[in-house]
Amino acid sequence: MPASYAYLGPEGTFTEVALRTLPEAATRELIPYVSVQSALDAVRVGEAEAAFVPIENSVEGGITTTLDELVAGTPLMIYREVLLSITFALLVRPGTKLSDIKTVTAHPAAQPQVRNWLKTHLPDAVWESAASNADGARLVQEGRYDAAFAGEFAAARYGLEALETGIHDAENAQTRFVLVGRPARPAARTGADKTSIVLWQRDDHPGGLRDLLGEFATRGINLMLLQSRPTGAGIGNYCFCIDAEGHISDRRMAEALMGLKRICLQVRFLGSYPRADMQPGEVRPLFPGTSDEEFVGAADWVARCQDGRF
Amino acid sequence: MPASYAYLGPEGTFTEVALRTLPEAATRELIPYVSVQSALDAVRVGEAEAAFVPIENSVEGGITTTLDELVAGTPLMIYREVLLSITFALLVRPGTKLSDIKTVTAHPAAQPQVRNWLKTHLPDAVWESAASNADGARLVQEGRYDAAFAGEFAAARYGLEALETGIHDAENAQTRFVLVGRPARPAARTGADKTSIVLWQRDDHPGGLRDLLGEFATRGINLMLLQSRPTGAGIGNYCFCIDAEGHISDRRMAEALMGLKRICLQVRFLGSYPRADMQPGEVRPLFPGTSDEEFVGAADWVARCQDGRF
Repeated sequence: MPASYAYLGPEGTFTEVALRTLPEAATRELIPYVSVQSALDAVRVGEAEAAFVPIENSVEGGITTTLDELVAGTPLMIYREVLLSITFALLVRPGTKLSDIKTVTAHPAAQPQVRNWLKTHLPDAVWESAASNADGARLVQEGRYDAAFAGEFAAARYGLEALETGIHDAENAQTRFVLVGRPARPAARTGADKTSIVLWQRDDHPGGLRDLLGEFATRGINLMLLQSRPTGAGIGNYCFCIDAEGHISDRRMAEALMGLKRICLQVRFLGSYPRADMQPGEVRPLFPGTSDEEFVGAADWVARCQDGRF
Repeated sequence: MPASYAYLGPEGTFTEVALRTLPEAATRELIPYVSVQSALDAVRVGEAEAAFVPIENSVEGGITTTLDELVAGTPLMIYREVLLSITFALLVRPGTKLSDIKTVTAHPAAQPQVRNWLKTHLPDAVWESAASNADGARLVQEGRYDAAFAGEFAAARYGLEALETGIHDAENAQTRFVLVGRPARPAARTGADKTSIVLWQRDDHPGGLRDLLGEFATRGINLMLLQSRPTGAGIGNYCFCIDAEGHISDRRMAEALMGLKRICLQVRFLGSYPRADMQPGEVRPLFPGTSDEEFVGAADWVARCQDGRF
């Protein structure tokens, strides 16, 4: 397997910064790709060992291009996640003053996060979208625009300076990234894990989705993400991308997945992996009988009953 | 109230075509706005009677800019919906042949719907995004690009011809649009209605979302859309935009909404309005005791009990 990771490029974006926080990235060649699709395809055809792409954003929600790629096509699996706080710097050519700025640029995804700042500080500046934040910085270097919103780390690479840093409209603006590879045995349980799956309902009827979620709820499993995505079969036809607390080797999670496998048209397992926030899943006292010990104890009891040893 | 409708412009896009299918549009002045936000703000400040914007797409799912606008800010209400089938024409300057086309343009939302067609028929053409499909057609007229994907209806307006029509990657590619106004009494029940709401959970615990959906399921109400949207309070914090079959004046729906009001942190009512597909909601025999007659009969019985007349 080639020792390289594909990632959503170009170089000098938040994705590269997030990828470099993974210890294993230091021993791999990191290759930028022009799109999420091309990065994941590089993994599918064996050009790269894994791909690193954004999957969820606290301002925009689930990143649909990534979810749709994981939902369809040759199955892939998530092995790691990284959470990165996103704040922007306003990058300009050295010597530019705030009052000189007539045009600003950045990737369209940056716009909702800098909109209020712009309204207050540069109400008359014209916004032009760039292919990426790094590309916006390059266009400022070339003189096409006066200023770019990008990570502060991009300033040095493009010979720019940060006129302002720490720009963000929403407190706690974070993006979640995942490392995706070909299916293999999931990483071992850490005690603070997350399991990602995609569910397709057998048919559409009152209570259908409620019944699917019941497979988690009756086993005391908390959900962290539920994002509906169109199946392509017309308005109103959705599958569900779900992140749930726990690891597939946990009894509670294994049971929930078996229950879903029985009642769903299709279930795609997207992986069990350590939570970036390292918080162990919490089983609430609200649901008595759902502690890990009780799950193990109940399995022992059934096994003893089956042996006539109860 | 001014007799004008704001809509997501510019002129000559699918939004305008969809708006003109509404009989009431014939008696209003139709004014294009540059964004969903500005169209809805025109209603909020009383500049327009209502705004007409896309809200759901069978390829891309819920249109997040519209949902986020309805979720936040001064409350608005949905009064009508329109479903429009979306197929693209490839528009060129008269005389252009397929082999002449080096560059193509359209709104980014068109790309997933024409991607396969492009790969087959114009594998080497360079894609450049336009601000709207109509704007793409204008840029072809000006000679900036060789071809634009747009509605066939845009050809005449920009002096172009359709080299190919009926282009779509997904069968049944449809977009759903809504007419949004200031809150008032919902339109009367037609028997084929839809109710839209936004739910915020009190807290995040195992089974929390399942319990919310249970308010619909136990009353035999089918859901048509469930789209999670970030609350802005960080990764993992979502509210839920829900479309459910039925009208707020139906007993079943009124009961479900009361149940949600009791258990949710917040419920925003976005309106009850006729379904564009005119299909009456189906109550499945699977859920005995949930016919309209049974709801009315049960209410009568409780009233009689309260009077000691059972």
